This record gives sequence, C-alpha cells and structure tokens, in this order.
Amino acid sequence: MTSAETAPPPGSAPLSPTPRSTVRRKRDRAATDRAELYAVLDAGIIGHLGVVVDGAPVVLPTLYGRDGDTVYLHGSPGAHSLRLAAAGAPLCLTVTHLDGVVYARSVFHHSLNYRSAVIHGTARPLAGDEALQALRMLIEHTAPGGWGHARVPTPKEAASTAVLALPLAEASVKIRRGAPGDDPEDVAAGLAWAGVLPLEQRWGTPVPAPDLEPGRPVPPHVSDRLPLGRDLTAS
Amino acid sequence: MTSAETAPPPGSAPLSPTPRSTVRRKRDRAATDRAELYAVLDAGIIGHLGVVVDGAPVVLPTLYGRDGDTVYLHGSPGAHSLRLAAAGAPLCLTVTHLDGVVYARSVFHHSLNYRSAVIHGTARPLAGDEALQALRMLIEHTAPGGWGHARVPTPKEAASTAVLALPLAEASVKIRRGAPGDDPEDVAAGLAWAGVLPLEQRWGTPVPAPDLEPGRPVPPHVSDRLPLGRDLTAS
Repeated sequence: MTSAETAPPPGSAPLSPTPRSTVRRKRDRAATDRAELYAVLDAGIIGHLGVVVDGAPVVLPTLYGRDGDTVYLHGSPGAHSLRLAAAGAPLCLTVTHLDGVVYARSVFHHSLNYRSAVIHGTARPLAGDEALQALRMLIEHTAPGGWGHARVPTPKEAASTAVLALPLAEASVKIRRGAPGDDPEDVAAGLAWAGVLPLEQRWGTPVPAPDLEPGRPVPPHVSDRLPLGRDLTAS
Repeated sequence: MTSAETAPPPGSAPLSPTPRSTVRRKRDRAATDRAELYAVLDAGIIGHLGVVVDGAPVVLPTLYGRDGDTVYLHGSPGAHSLRLAAAGAPLCLTVTHLDGVVYARSVFHHSLNYRSAVIHGTARPLAGDEALQALRMLIEHTAPGGWGHARVPTPKEAASTAVLALPLAEASVKIRRGAPGDDPEDVAAGLAWAGVLPLEQRWGTPVPAPDLEPGRPVPPHVSDRLPLGRDLTAS
C-alpha cells in the first residue's frame, strides 16, 4: 500500500508485509487476511512479548487486549521490560495456539497444527481515560464480563499500572491445519499410522475463593464462558 | 555458586539466578527448584524463542525437547532466526502454561494462574550422531513413541534440519496458583464473585490421514497419549 492510497476501513486492510513480517519459511502457511490476525488474537489470552535488554532478547508471557487495530499491554511500571517498551524500544508480541500433533509415516514429516500471529512494532504509553479504557479492553479480553461485575480500578490502582498501545501495523500470521504431508513412497509403503491428534482446551469447574460467602452463585460470565482457543476461521 | 564449588549432580542443582534470571516482579511467584524448571518444560510442547534481528526482537513459536540440562531446538537451516542462533546469538526460550483465570472482587486483582520458564543463553549447533540423538529427543517430547513407530530420518533429511543445543544454565521459573488476592475491604464488602476458572487441555479423538489404509488401528502411543500441560508439581 503506498501513502497515496486512501486508508481502508479498519479490518478490511490486508496484512501488508514488510520485509520482517514476510513469512519466508513454509510460505504456504502464511495467512494474509487481517481477519485471520484478529481471529488468532481474539482466540487467545496470553502472548509472549519480546524486548531487547542489553543486546539480548527477553521473552515474557503477558496478557493483552485488542480493540480494532490496537493491542493493549500492561504491567508494573517498575518492570524493566515494560519500562523499555514504554520508552519506545522495538517489541515483538507473538500469540500461538497449538491445535494438534501431526503424526506422519516418517519422523521427518511429524509436525504441529497451530495458529500464530507475530506483531512487530513500538508501543505508546497511555494515561488518564485512555489508559482506563485500555485496562477495560484487557479485562474484557482476559475475563469477559469482569469489568461490569467487579470493582473498577481506583485512580491509585490505575496509576500503579503501566498501559501501552501497540498498533497492528506490521504483523504476520502463520497457520498449519490438516493431515500430515508424507512422501508418496512412505504412504505407499504403509509404514506407520498417520494422522492428527487434536489438542483441545476447555474450561474446568469454577473454584470459588475460600473466603467467598457460602452459597454465592457463580455468575454467568464465569459459568458460561465461551470456549477458548477455537479455530474460528477454519472451514 | 562459586567456581571453587564442585558441580552438583544433574537435577539436584538449584536454579542459580544471574541478574537477568532473577525474578524481580511478584517474587513470591518465583520457583527456585530445578525440578520445577524440568516440570514446566516437560509439560509443554511449544516454546517461544526470542532472538535479536537488526536490533529488534523476533519471537517465534518452536517445538523443543529436553534431555537433562540441555534443551534441543531445530528448524530450517535457512531460517534467519535459526542461522543467528546457530552463530551464537543470545537467545531466550520461554515456555508458559495457562492454568486458569483468576476472578477477583476488584478488576485490579484479576489475574491468571500460570507456570512459565524463561531460559537465557546461547546455543551450540549439533551435527552427526549428536544431531540425530537431539532429533530423537525433539520427537520423543513432541510425539512420544513416534521415533519407534515412524521411519527414522535419512541422512539427507537429517542434514536438511538445523539442530541446536541450549544449556539450562540460566533460567527462571514463575508460578501463580490458587485463589485471588483481594483487598480485605473488598472481601468484607462482598462486592463480587471471586474464584478461579481452571483451563484444561485434553487430547481429542485421533483423526486418521485421508490416505491411511482403511481399518488401520490407532497405535497406543497416539490413542493413549498422556494428558498435556498437567501441573505435575502442584500439591
């Protein structure tokens, strides 16, 4: 997309790869539809955030939220990686869903079915109402319904949380689905069983806090939480 | 541990934090037992590998294997991040299990239950028999029983895979388990439901490859695969 073009409405723009967001290995696994990026992000709870500290990579798990083409991150204002991120250090946020193990006739073609999104960029620190709205997005992603049910942050609590906005400007999506890709000779030889063992996630039974009032019912936003990690874009 | 000390037998050495592997935020979540590091690694299939490319972090999902105090990684010899890793670039491999969502009386104390291991270091490229044994560890971690069932790699296949060994010398483990940590005033006020919604992983029904011989039974290493991601060290 050149700068002369009119920006498309949010969600309709294809993923426009830069050199580093271009999938080079296993190109057939690259997805180029922005809707697939949203689907991978929305199906997850945690991502892995990379930042460079003293020349070396540091990768830490983090929760996130998304609103349109912005991903929100948060953490302790004192955390080294978050301080660097807030100061404009380059970031990489990767979200991966493991969907199954692919058993092939050969060890070589054993593989995994997965969906992953890799986002490159720099983040902008948020303050005031913008930070509060971002915290709401983080909670609505992590614990949908939590914001309306639990006590909202006090100004002091909000101030003790660093909140960052990372644009979905440079991202790639890679997806592998389906059967093993065996060599024809191995298929013909009937060497071994081949197929996929799917991996599924499900919510367990809610465990009330030990100090919860006895008999207090589990609210619907917890008891009826939708399954996580579903492959929403699979046919 | 000073260099004058005798190295303890594998597995008995506590995690000996360097400045960058010292958990600074939420120190009560830091585990210091090497067995907990093994447990987190052994309960997972994929990790997120960070490497610095042109000054910016790149974080990619990758499968791995473990044997004692070595983690094995593999990939295409042509992949940029793997080429850098093989050339001695600093790496960070992080493995995270999400065990549940913690619903608190306040938005502020909403949290996640998780187990994560963060490994820092540089990797050594392997060749020949050492590489083949490492590939075996990778398969036995990803698809236990696969090496004995499927066709083993030809020399050409083995040569087309780059295999690296990353020592478990500098690592940290962080674990959060259990109930929300609400403020006493919020507990007393009975503001909201509080507790944990556990997240569980389970294997689905094996899906045979479309070109598999009809009637070929699913072998036990697939049909009876042990559950993944279990919190083996939780009491």
